Amino acid sequence: MSDSGDVFEIHLRWGDMDALGHINNVQIARLFEQARVECFNRWFGNARRGIHLLVARQEIEYVSILHYSTDPVRIVCSISAVGRSSFEFGYELLDPKGTVCALAETTVVIMTAEGKPAPIPDEVRTILADHRGGPVPFRRRRGATD
Amino acid sequence: MSDSGDVFEIHLRWGDMDALGHINNVQIARLFEQARVECFNRWFGNARRGIHLLVARQEIEYVSILHYSTDPVRIVCSISAVGRSSFEFGYELLDPKGTVCALAETTVVIMTAEGKPAPIPDEVRTILADHRGGPVPFRRRRGATD
Amino acid sequence: MSDSGDVFEIHLRWGDMDALGHINNVQIARLFEQARVECFNRWFGNARRGIHLLVARQEIEYVSILHYSTDPVRIVCSISAVGRSSFEFGYELLDPKGTVCALAETTVVIMTAEGKPAPIPDEVRTILADHRGGPVPFRRRRGATD
Amino acid sequence: MSDSGDVFEIHLRWGDMDALGHINNVQIARLFEQARVECFNRWFGNARRGIHLLVARQEIEYVSILHYSTDPVRIVCSISAVGRSSFEFGYELLDPKGTVCALAETTVVIMTAEGKPAPIPDEVRTILADHRGGPVPFRRRRGATD
Repeated sequence: MSDSGDVFEIHLRWGDMDALGHINNVQIARLFEQARVECFNRWFGNARRGIHLLVARQEIEYVSILHYSTDPVRIVCSISAVGRSSFEFGYELLDPKGTVCALAETTVVIMTAEGKPAPIPDEVRTILADHRGGPVPFRRRRGATD
Repeated sequence: MSDSGDVFEIHLRWGDMDALGHINNVQIARLFEQARVECFNRWFGNARRGIHLLVARQEIEYVSILHYSTDPVRIVCSISAVGRSSFEFGYELLDPKGTVCALAETTVVIMTAEGKPAPIPDEVRTILADHRGGPVPFRRRRGATD
Repeated sequence: MSDSGDVFEIHLRWGDMDALGHINNVQIARLFEQARVECFNRWFGNARRGIHLLVARQEIEYVSILHYSTDPVRIVCSISAVGRSSFEFGYELLDPKGTVCALAETTVVIMTAEGKPAPIPDEVRTILADHRGGPVPFRRRRGATD
Repeated sequence: MSDSGDVFEIHLRWGDMDALGHINNVQIARLFEQARVECFNRWFGNARRGIHLLVARQEIEYVSILHYSTDPVRIVCSISAVGRSSFEFGYELLDPKGTVCALAETTVVIMTAEGKPAPIPDEVRTILADHRGGPVPFRRRRGATD
């Protein structure tokens, strides 16, 4: 997956660390949020006008501890699935040395102004198709504890 | 699931809201983190001495928008699965009116001091069994966009 | 100052700690923000309709390290000065044992809808007068390093 | 002050905004923290070994609303005062257009390993002298509401 997809450099903050001395799990969700916001801005620009997006689900796999660094992490973003009114946004977070530290997938639902799910507009569907990548290479899955 | 499980009242902060004017998705992960920390303190107490826990995966389903309120949310916690060296911690977040706003499941791995996965100690396994609940009632699942 | 003033119990979060293992300085500003928001809600209620408040200055003295606890901190709030279009909001943060950990003062400016400073409306001035306390007992001051 | 001093580019995050739709006051303290951490790393490097620094006071003047942008802000840092066991660290935050949005000053105390204030070591004092700037150009001051 890291071979394809749009790459965003996201800067860590010292304050992203928690009492364990490494980047906090919740702050990793913050880094993914930032990559998603920047990615949507890049992809949709004007096409996003009047379209409301809702985060309906998010799954993060924490693969390797992320240490604070003044060098930015890289987050690789692509579309991992497209449905009728929702799509899956996949990401891979690599530390400055290139180690995959976290994987994530976010289910994004297209909403009407009234707050109901709406079919993905053709203009958006085309953009999503242009950025289609493979499935997020999760190793773990729900309920399959070992 | 909300019928059983330990309940934690978690207070929202005005600063948990984002520019959309409701509680931010990432901050909802922060609320789940707080419930998990308080729950582990309650359950494990001394039994936790020398045991290292690692968050390996987390999935959150955002069911309903959570609005800021000075009344606390309630987070109901229970164990949704137990494996050899890991377990699944399930939660349900209800707003002050009792509406389910988010569901979550966290895969927690037992680690040795050297950072390797270790079998769940018997003492911990007994505690987990005492707090066993049903599966988290997710409606969405990975890659199954509609 | 802790003898008078409105008291707010604010709950800490495990995630408020930083890599030094105690409540982060910036998160202490977050706790003060939360007390201020709750205090304004209590004092102003309807009187606040149409009034815009702007934080123009904030000073925090960190007196004693604040440790994480599941018991809430107490923040005592009162008005430390009133001017023509602005007022000073003073606070004292005490940990669960009653130790003063931080003092703060926030300059709040009354703004018109157009974003210009406006005289404090009489209705607001009366409320501020009702909650007038002494000066914040800062021990340090700007430029007076020892 | 912005003429002299070390400059750090700090990246904003979408999540730094609050419900008012601009960068939250507390998050501005987070940006200053990040600049200070990066600045101390640059200035002190090895000289910092064994030296404990404590933030004892911080004052921020919010001059102009800071809007979210993918372009970084610039924070200009210098030393505004030096005492026996503490010094004042001054900053100026400029948005991507060059508008001064916030000024800040932090009182930093040198601590022994036992947690007592200690005289500033000569090696540190020399570094501070090398980065000496003018006073932070605050327009407001404590208790002087208008």
